[in-house]
Amino acid sequence: MTLSQSVLQGDRLALARLLTQVENDSAEGRAALAELFPHTGKTHLIGVTGAPGTGKSSLVNQLALHFRREGKRVAILAVDPSSPFTGGAVLGDRVRMRDLAGDAGVFIRSMATRGSLGGLAQATAAMTQVFDAAGFDVTLIETVGAGQSEVDIARLASTTLVVEAPGLGDDIQAIKAGILEIADVLVINKADRPGVENTEKALKSMLELAHPTRHVFLHHGRVETNGAFARSAKSPTLHPMSETLESGKMWLPPIQRTVAVEGQGIAELAAHIAEHAEHLRASGDWAARERARLGSEMEALLREALMARFRAEVPNGKFESTLKNVYERSLSPWEAVKLLLNGRQK
Amino acid sequence: MTLSQSVLQGDRLALARLLTQVENDSAEGRAALAELFPHTGKTHLIGVTGAPGTGKSSLVNQLALHFRREGKRVAILAVDPSSPFTGGAVLGDRVRMRDLAGDAGVFIRSMATRGSLGGLAQATAAMTQVFDAAGFDVTLIETVGAGQSEVDIARLASTTLVVEAPGLGDDIQAIKAGILEIADVLVINKADRPGVENTEKALKSMLELAHPTRHVFLHHGRVETNGAFARSAKSPTLHPMSETLESGKMWLPPIQRTVAVEGQGIAELAAHIAEHAEHLRASGDWAARERARLGSEMEALLREALMARFRAEVPNGKFESTLKNVYERSLSPWEAVKLLLNGRQK
Repeated sequence: MTLSQSVLQGDRLALARLLTQVENDSAEGRAALAELFPHTGKTHLIGVTGAPGTGKSSLVNQLALHFRREGKRVAILAVDPSSPFTGGAVLGDRVRMRDLAGDAGVFIRSMATRGSLGGLAQATAAMTQVFDAAGFDVTLIETVGAGQSEVDIARLASTTLVVEAPGLGDDIQAIKAGILEIADVLVINKADRPGVENTEKALKSMLELAHPTRHVFLHHGRVETNGAFARSAKSPTLHPMSETLESGKMWLPPIQRTVAVEGQGIAELAAHIAEHAEHLRASGDWAARERARLGSEMEALLREALMARFRAEVPNGKFESTLKNVYERSLSPWEAVKLLLNGRQK
Repeated sequence: MTLSQSVLQGDRLALARLLTQVENDSAEGRAALAELFPHTGKTHLIGVTGAPGTGKSSLVNQLALHFRREGKRVAILAVDPSSPFTGGAVLGDRVRMRDLAGDAGVFIRSMATRGSLGGLAQATAAMTQVFDAAGFDVTLIETVGAGQSEVDIARLASTTLVVEAPGLGDDIQAIKAGILEIADVLVINKADRPGVENTEKALKSMLELAHPTRHVFLHHGRVETNGAFARSAKSPTLHPMSETLESGKMWLPPIQRTVAVEGQGIAELAAHIAEHAEHLRASGDWAARERARLGSEMEALLREALMARFRAEVPNGKFESTLKNVYERSLSPWEAVKLLLNGRQK
């Protein structure tokens, strides 16, 4: 039996092994991914992103417990180096995570964040496909969310939660402006802390700025099927409401207060997530987001394949000698690249 | 006179205009970069990275003032969406930034962080080259530093400051482990806050873990001249001390306490930065870092050029129809890419 067949039959050890292969981008991993791919397209990808200190790991933990009580199988992928799932964070958190440890309906996996950026987002996408094929109903992706890269990873999700917390420092407000546009649901965790009203007020006024009446910011639309190929598709676009939401209903991110460590607000949060999934299906955005995801994956693989082909065709010494010329300022980097590309055509 | 000639003659308006061209990656920007490139290689690139709330913008402000008093010309590039230089953060900060506003020896520029990640790092690299050619002695790059991407941008620098602050939330400690390895100088800002001893103790013990006696983590060596071309060069490498530091001296990141808003510790911090520059020159790492920087820039340009060529050769409809097959699960993304590449060879 191949590794992917074992995974399809629910073998957890095979799953763990395959995830490693996929994370390392091995030939075996790639072959297995191709075999598993027809079985994908079912899981609900939920991104959970937020700055350090917002308690998003505890939130992920509680959401997983909630989904388990609904009988769903849950995968957790922690891309956050500070996550207790990854071995980071304080002991208290890690103890809490043990709630999930003995449950066969839960699979927790953390990612190394050492590699290159593009590689990380790509590996994350591939690993969620493995979970998808393995029959997990929900896949939670936890990212640290303060940087653009984490936002890109969160964009893999069908539903993205952006987690805030009161009183985290005076420039948190500005960060929000950047990640607000990817939020499908806003969570104010640690809502028992002082300052929660101010946090909510700030989020509300920022939401109003981000979602004026006539327009809606469709972030996942930024890599649309007809845009995946165009350079301009790299930046988010503001779509007139009528174009993006055929159902005529528009989604305004709800704001949910939670105290994750005490389980408060979790059921309400899960209800918002379920509503969002329903909205995506009704509006056609579920499919649009999936096409965008696949288009963007194809483009990343394409870039990599082109570079691999170039490496195979151009001897390493040629790159080195050209770099030497650049270092000595006799060629600009761009001139050097043109030279390398022309050398290849001959 | 061309834009780049005006920039070389110190025209600030031309500089502002050229930076926009370069940020937008226009043809004019590329041509100017090639003209300016022979004039680069002189500025001291200093990366300042840290989580939201550490006060790194105030620190950048104070460092700039300090370098100005030494008669140096200073450029500031804020890649941090929360930076007051970028228009983010609270009013108080922005008022403080006015210290630098009327000074002709200072040029402040902020970047949009909307675009794609690779693009951002690339644009940042190109913009620092413009400052370099324009004769700025010091270029400060401010990034938010919590994500891998920001770390990658900080890696452009010859000297990287990692900024911490006491009492920022309970999972800050773990974040540090990830960014500690890129720190040349560690700064504990807001050192008048309670908890500063704990922060320093934690940093010290993490430094000991990261820098055992026999080995030193040479982060900028991760894209070395002979590695820029190899895939494995994407991950950092641990070099035996003897290989990386020919002078036999190894650099252990000093820890400096500061209270930036009151100017405390700034002169001492500047002294550490100067020592680090001296160390880089004595050990040969100054050149090694520059080669790594240029190699990595060439590789990024190469990837982009290969993709542009592919786009020109393969009709968009072909990509779309292949994506449709992937969406319908009749092809895996990897099979689709192989098909697209083969179609191109015919």
